Parts: sequence; structure tokens; C-alpha cells
Amino acid sequence: MGGAAASGDSGGPEADARTAGEVLAGYLHRQSGDFLRSLRLHRESGSDAQGADEAAWQLRAAARRISATLHTFRSLTDEAWADQLLAELGWLSGTLAREHACAARRSRLMAALQRLTTPAANAPAADPDAESALSAGAARAGALLDRQLTLARTRAHSAALQALGSSRFHAVADSVAVLASEAPLTHAAADVPAVEALPQLAEQAHRRLAEAVTALPLSRAGHPYNADALAADHRQDTPWHQVRMLVRLSRYAQEVIAPGHGDPRLADAGHALERHRDAAEAAAAASAAARTPRIAPATAYALGVLHADQRHEVEAARFAFGRVWLPRGKGGGPHG
Amino acid sequence: MGGAAASGDSGGPEADARTAGEVLAGYLHRQSGDFLRSLRLHRESGSDAQGADEAAWQLRAAARRISATLHTFRSLTDEAWADQLLAELGWLSGTLAREHACAARRSRLMAALQRLTTPAANAPAADPDAESALSAGAARAGALLDRQLTLARTRAHSAALQALGSSRFHAVADSVAVLASEAPLTHAAADVPAVEALPQLAEQAHRRLAEAVTALPLSRAGHPYNADALAADHRQDTPWHQVRMLVRLSRYAQEVIAPGHGDPRLADAGHALERHRDAAEAAAAASAAARTPRIAPATAYALGVLHADQRHEVEAARFAFGRVWLPRGKGGGPHG
Repeated sequence: MGGAAASGDSGGPEADARTAGEVLAGYLHRQSGDFLRSLRLHRESGSDAQGADEAAWQLRAAARRISATLHTFRSLTDEAWADQLLAELGWLSGTLAREHACAARRSRLMAALQRLTTPAANAPAADPDAESALSAGAARAGALLDRQLTLARTRAHSAALQALGSSRFHAVADSVAVLASEAPLTHAAADVPAVEALPQLAEQAHRRLAEAVTALPLSRAGHPYNADALAADHRQDTPWHQVRMLVRLSRYAQEVIAPGHGDPRLADAGHALERHRDAAEAAAAASAAARTPRIAPATAYALGVLHADQRHEVEAARFAFGRVWLPRGKGGGPHG
Repeated sequence: MGGAAASGDSGGPEADARTAGEVLAGYLHRQSGDFLRSLRLHRESGSDAQGADEAAWQLRAAARRISATLHTFRSLTDEAWADQLLAELGWLSGTLAREHACAARRSRLMAALQRLTTPAANAPAADPDAESALSAGAARAGALLDRQLTLARTRAHSAALQALGSSRFHAVADSVAVLASEAPLTHAAADVPAVEALPQLAEQAHRRLAEAVTALPLSRAGHPYNADALAADHRQDTPWHQVRMLVRLSRYAQEVIAPGHGDPRLADAGHALERHRDAAEAAAAASAAARTPRIAPATAYALGVLHADQRHEVEAARFAFGRVWLPRGKGGGPHG
């Protein structure tokens, strides 16, 4: 997490004297540096797949922070310029994220299949019929998912390489390089003290988050085993995904105004919602695999079990989010 | 121990004066009366299916209480006679329970399928592919389960009718009728005061229950979404089923020594474990249906989802049991 940790030094009293423009420019400068450095690492990684993965991950981390900053503190930037870069960073992050997501989804589903078919230790006499039925289906389901997700990953990898070689990407990199030298901020940003302008905008981001959380069925999600997430209708996931984005904006806004002093509960809330997203996507992959023509009923059965298992992970992640968000009382949430 | 604590009942001073034999004979007399009355009702119910169901339910309830009493207070009865009746009541209850269980399992699975395929209210745009896939499979899975469980129910119904007309059953009814007039108790039972002999035996029953609970993975079950119950290996259910029986013995023992003062938490614990058993059996039925030859993959998929859903109900029931059992602290459980 380069951004937060690396800048968690200078901090308080010094920041008080700086203008909003200085603080923003400093933060964007560091993120821009991380972005360009990881881009170079990615190019130099050659056949080192792990190195390339790591570099891509850091590139996306920097891109996310730049996007979040341009979004939250938009009124202090050249808005047309910021909006343009935001859109392009969205395209880039989306393209680069896909390969990693396919690999992570595959790992998650294989681990779940493993868990579902491993007998408990010290268990008394078994029902061999029932077990071998699931095991046979699970092995085939695993092979099917492996094939489908490996193919998807290969495609995502090609798309990412193509994107990184495109003129569209070079334009994005040029724009990010601008942030390293002279971030296009407003005159107002150069005039107003950081402590006056920035916390207010960060607070707005947090307010949008708190409002979105209010719309979630949190009290229901707080009852374990409510079985909500397994309903056929996965449109219910959307507001949770929305909150995940808002948590991220709020977290990075805190990082700008108080580096190294982020609320750990905001990070925990973000992790719960990332798990929510991952499980929802894994469930969808299991469900999609079950629609492959001509699969055996045992394979389809195992995919059904797997789908339900991941939807329960979705429910568990909502429960975990509620536990992170609610303990300080009704109104609140982290720094509420 | 609740039995002891609760025995300060309305009948207190009066009960204090009675012998163990009087209390036991009185309880068995009432249960025997219930048994014979519900048997008559069942015979007279004719084509009134609901009436027959209710009568069978009452017959089983009385049989359960007689069994539990003979079991817990066995040392105060003619043991050979009690053991013989216990075995026969076990046969009868098992035979009569099957029809009801098939009907309840069918209802439970149909309700689950309904829940799994009903879209949430006020949801945004859907993924029609994913939904229609599950819906189509769910409809077929429902039809398959309906067929299989209705057939099983019909068979159980015939078996129950046959049992009720058998000479074996008439012998059981004769033995139960004996309890109404002169329960075969020991001389010791006629000599010892109820307050001396009965709470001690009830306490033994509760101790056996408490020991069996100690062997359950309760602290793990107390963590919501531990995903234990979905493992391929359902042998893990056995100790929970065992505890369900022991809860019942403890509950009926309390009923004998302090009628109307049962610990409500013991009843709640029993309900949680009944739900545990019902869900486990429903999951097994879904899994068995998936092994029907020549079913469509979509049907198998829906059965897999259903199986996992019911196994999560199993996990939820364990969690509920833990919540009932543990709140008073480490050692305890109800009246611990």
C-alpha cells in the first residue's frame, strides 16, 4: 500500500501551515511517481510473471488513489482535465484488473471445492454414496471452471498487454506524468489553507458513504443466517458494490488529509466489501459454468452447491461489514 | 439444575408428601390416557386426513413421554417390562413418524425452492439469463422432489396403517393400557418420597445431556458463517442428533417432577435441534434426488443449490442451539 504507508511521516503541525494546493499536489506527486515506477517495473518484468503481477497491482493501486483524489477534491482541480483523466484511469484500471480477477476467482472456487469435498477429521462412519456423488461432480466441476477461468485469464492478459501498448495508454501515462510536476489545480487551491478546504471535502465524501450505507438492509444483514443472499435475484448486490466504491473514496480522502492516520475500521469495511464482491463474482462464475451445454448432471449439481456456497460467503461478508460498521451505535460507522 | 429449582411449583407441598411411585404412576396414567384417546380419535377420523394427522401426532407425543419416563426413571420400574415397552414404542413412533416427516420435508423443500426463485421486491435491472436458468431447473427439481416425497409419504402412510392394524400394535396398546391402571413400579418407588428419588434421576438425565453437549464443537458453531455444515461429510451430524434425544429426555423428566415449570430454554434448544434434523434430512433428500438417473443438468444444478441451502440451515440451527445453550456462561446450558 505504497501511498498511505510511505507518506505516513510528515503529518500534523507542518500540514497545518500548507495550502490545500500544496497538500494535494504533494499527494498526487507521490502517486504519480508510484504509477510511473510500477509501469517501468512492469515493462522490465519480461518473463517474470510474478513481478509483472506485482507491478500491475501497484500500478492499479496508484491509479485508484489518483482517481479517488481527483474525484473527492474535484472542485479544487481543473475539472475538465480531471474528468478526462478520471475516465481514462477507469478504463485502464478495469482493463488491468481483469486478469488478476480471473486468477483470484479461480483460486477462490478451487479452494471452496476443496473445502466442500474434504471429509472432516475423526468423523464416524460415512455415507459413501452421497460423498462419492459430490466428489465425482466436484472434480469435473473443478476441471470445467479451471478451463473456463484460465481461458478468461489468458484473454484478459492479452487485452492488458494490448492496452499497455496502445496510444490511448500513452496518453494516460502522459497525463499522470503531468501530476508529478504540476498538478492542474485551481487558484483557490493555492490560496486556501489545507486544514480549511480539505477536511470539508473529505467529510462530504464520508457523508455520501454514510448515506449509501443507510440504504443497505444492515439490520437484516446483522442477523446471521438470514439467507438473503441466496435468493435468485442478485440485483440486490448493487447497492453493496456502490458502498464498496464509496468506502474506497472515503479511505483515500483520509489518506490525503491525514496520511498514516486512516481509520482501521474503514479499511476493514473495505475488505469485507471486497470479499463480498469476490464471492458474488465467483458465484456468478459457478452459475455461468452450469449453463455450459452437455455437462453431466453430477457436474451441474456440484456447481449448484458451489454457487450456493459462494452466495453464503456474500451473506457472510455483509454480516462482517455490519459488524465493522455498526458497533459504535446507530448513526455512525467509522468516524461517524 | 432446573428440575430441582423448578420443583417449587404450585403442587409443591402436595408433591412433597407424595411418594415417587405416586408421582410416576400419575404421570404415566395421564400419558397412557392421551395415548389411548388419540388412538380412538385416529380410528374414528376416517377420511378426515387432518384429523388423522393430528391424532397420530398426539399419539406419538404421548408415546415419546412414556418412553422418556420409562428411560429416565427406569430404576424405579419393573425394568424388564419397561425395556420391552420401550423397544416397542420405539418401533411404533418410528413407523408413525415417517409419514409426517415426508410431508414436512416436502413442505420445507418446496418453501426453500420458492424462496430461492422469488425475486426481491424493488430490485434494479436483472440478469435474466441467470435467473431463468435457476427458475427452469428449480421448477423441474420441485416436480422431481414432489414426486419422490409424495411416493415416500404414500408408502409411509400404508406402513403406518398396516402397523396400527397389526397384532404387534395391539400388544403395545395393551401394555400402554396397563400404565393407566397399575404402572409396574418397584416396591422402592412406593416407599421413597418423590422429592428424594425423582430429582436425582432427572439430574442424571441432565448430566448426560450436559456431557454430550460438551463434546459438540459449540464454540466453532457460535461463529456465524463458519461454513462447517456444508462440508461433504455429514457424519458430523450424529452427535447433534444424539443431543436432540438427550434434550428431549431431560425436558420430559422435568415435566414429570415439576409439571408446567419446564425450562423454556430447554424447549428452545430442542426446537433448534429439531430444525437441525429436519434441515439435514431435507438436504439429504435433495442430494438423493440429484442421483436420479437421466435428470437434466439444470435440475441437478437446482438440487445442488437446494442441498447447500439446507446444509446452511443445519449450520444456522447449530448456531441457534449455541445461542440458547451458552449465554449463561461457560459451564452451563439451561439450568447449568
